[in-house]
Amino acid sequence: MRFIVADWGTTRFRGYLIEDETILDQVSSNEGVSALRQGQHRDVFLRQCGHWLKAEPDAPVLLVGMVGSREGWVEAPYATCPAGPAEIARALVPVDLENGRRGYIIPGLFCEPAPGAADVMRGEETLVLGAGIENGLICSAGTHPKWIEMRDGRIERFATYMTGEMYALLREHSMIGRPATAPEDPAGFDIGLDAAERNSGANRVGLLHLLFSARASVVSGRMNSNLLAPYLSGLLTGDEINGALAQFGRPASVTILAAPERAELYAHALKRHGIETRTKDTQQALIAGLARIVRQHALG
Amino acid sequence: MRFIVADWGTTRFRGYLIEDETILDQVSSNEGVSALRQGQHRDVFLRQCGHWLKAEPDAPVLLVGMVGSREGWVEAPYATCPAGPAEIARALVPVDLENGRRGYIIPGLFCEPAPGAADVMRGEETLVLGAGIENGLICSAGTHPKWIEMRDGRIERFATYMTGEMYALLREHSMIGRPATAPEDPAGFDIGLDAAERNSGANRVGLLHLLFSARASVVSGRMNSNLLAPYLSGLLTGDEINGALAQFGRPASVTILAAPERAELYAHALKRHGIETRTKDTQQALIAGLARIVRQHALG
Repeated sequence: MRFIVADWGTTRFRGYLIEDETILDQVSSNEGVSALRQGQHRDVFLRQCGHWLKAEPDAPVLLVGMVGSREGWVEAPYATCPAGPAEIARALVPVDLENGRRGYIIPGLFCEPAPGAADVMRGEETLVLGAGIENGLICSAGTHPKWIEMRDGRIERFATYMTGEMYALLREHSMIGRPATAPEDPAGFDIGLDAAERNSGANRVGLLHLLFSARASVVSGRMNSNLLAPYLSGLLTGDEINGALAQFGRPASVTILAAPERAELYAHALKRHGIETRTKDTQQALIAGLARIVRQHALG
Repeated sequence: MRFIVADWGTTRFRGYLIEDETILDQVSSNEGVSALRQGQHRDVFLRQCGHWLKAEPDAPVLLVGMVGSREGWVEAPYATCPAGPAEIARALVPVDLENGRRGYIIPGLFCEPAPGAADVMRGEETLVLGAGIENGLICSAGTHPKWIEMRDGRIERFATYMTGEMYALLREHSMIGRPATAPEDPAGFDIGLDAAERNSGANRVGLLHLLFSARASVVSGRMNSNLLAPYLSGLLTGDEINGALAQFGRPASVTILAAPERAELYAHALKRHGIETRTKDTQQALIAGLARIVRQHALG
């Protein structure tokens, strides 16, 4: 089956023409959702993907990512966990393309990872459904890493951590990251993981203290300044993992959806907990997830 | 005894002429340490306080705060905890003022709040020594709140939290704080304290998750956007307090050094833990601490 996809995030537009799980053609631009105003989305889509619409008059069209947020084309309300391809296909939100043809925005997901708590995703649900995991724990490690519990092929619940954005805040805007120097010494990552252990168990000292402590170690001459940036990365990643294992238990293995370099850091950190990892390519997972949703949609 | 003081921080210069614990005269400017280059400090000091030097030829001169950091006038190496007025007076670092007269920079303090950990303060040591607490726990609640354990009149150890700076980062630079709206609903502070409880005890979910969750609650319509800013403040303050109580135990009471509005929030949060608070004025504490150090210095 051929279908057309827009993977439309905050900063990038990516269009794909797909047959089954193979990409036949693709386009890309910096026309992300944050660069557009209300009413501009259709024009961007037609300019980027209009030629596929003409060439493939029967191909279904899916849109995924922040294009379904309040700042996107049309707001696609969050579906609620647990959710699999069937629940997501039922919650697709149509948009008019041209000549009566419609595209379908994939809704994000809402869940209560614990009573009274709230979490959301938009885009990762599609990636995760393409990871080939029926039961188990997945970590989708982007700017806001998400830990996702799969049960019987559906997303049971998930929890998001602001790890990547926090690292950027500390490096770019905070006095905590200011003493960091290059070239970075990657040994700092493990020292940061060690520090994160001080924030697990009964005697947890608090992440806000450990972050200040990182700076204090450098300005007091206890730690070399080229260890600081990897140290902060290790501390944040370690604290994320401690939290995720507390929420979801300690599985024998975790599936990582991330770029290879980032995936390796998670594999290393999880090995310290005795947890094996396997890494999946994010683009492959996205295409596979889209194919599952489009097949489900075609069924009715 | 009359003495002259420069309370010289990152953003402000404050000069005082003091008799015992009474301020006779004061000056202030925005010539903080971060606005000055190497070699400019003496001129600023003489321009602001030179008339007191002439009028009080025998008055000791103390300088306190970031003026003793690497970016200050002269770096005053950290003294190591435990430290009281005697240890601090022994570690004063002289600077030349004019005609052979000297001023003395009060060193900051270094401590290992736990084995292998590091923490520093610069300025708060003087405040804390003026709080009138021989034994007990003090919270000095500025941008980087510090929890300080006093034993037999000396600073035994302390731990710093980046709470205030983190709040500013989240409000000004992060997508976490972006959905916040005014007028703020102060009820959010208590909901944030509730959320912080989910990050204490065995099932701690991680502060990085709770921060993302705050945004998720708003964008999913579970929480009103005017609760978000006070919620973030409550969450961060609650997590700080949980960490401090884990490090220092649960005393019957804590002394708060802070502006009244901030002190009230701490008093409210600590009352939920069954802990009483008393608040001390920070300027009074600073002057009292300076008087103790200057007397100790005069003893030799």
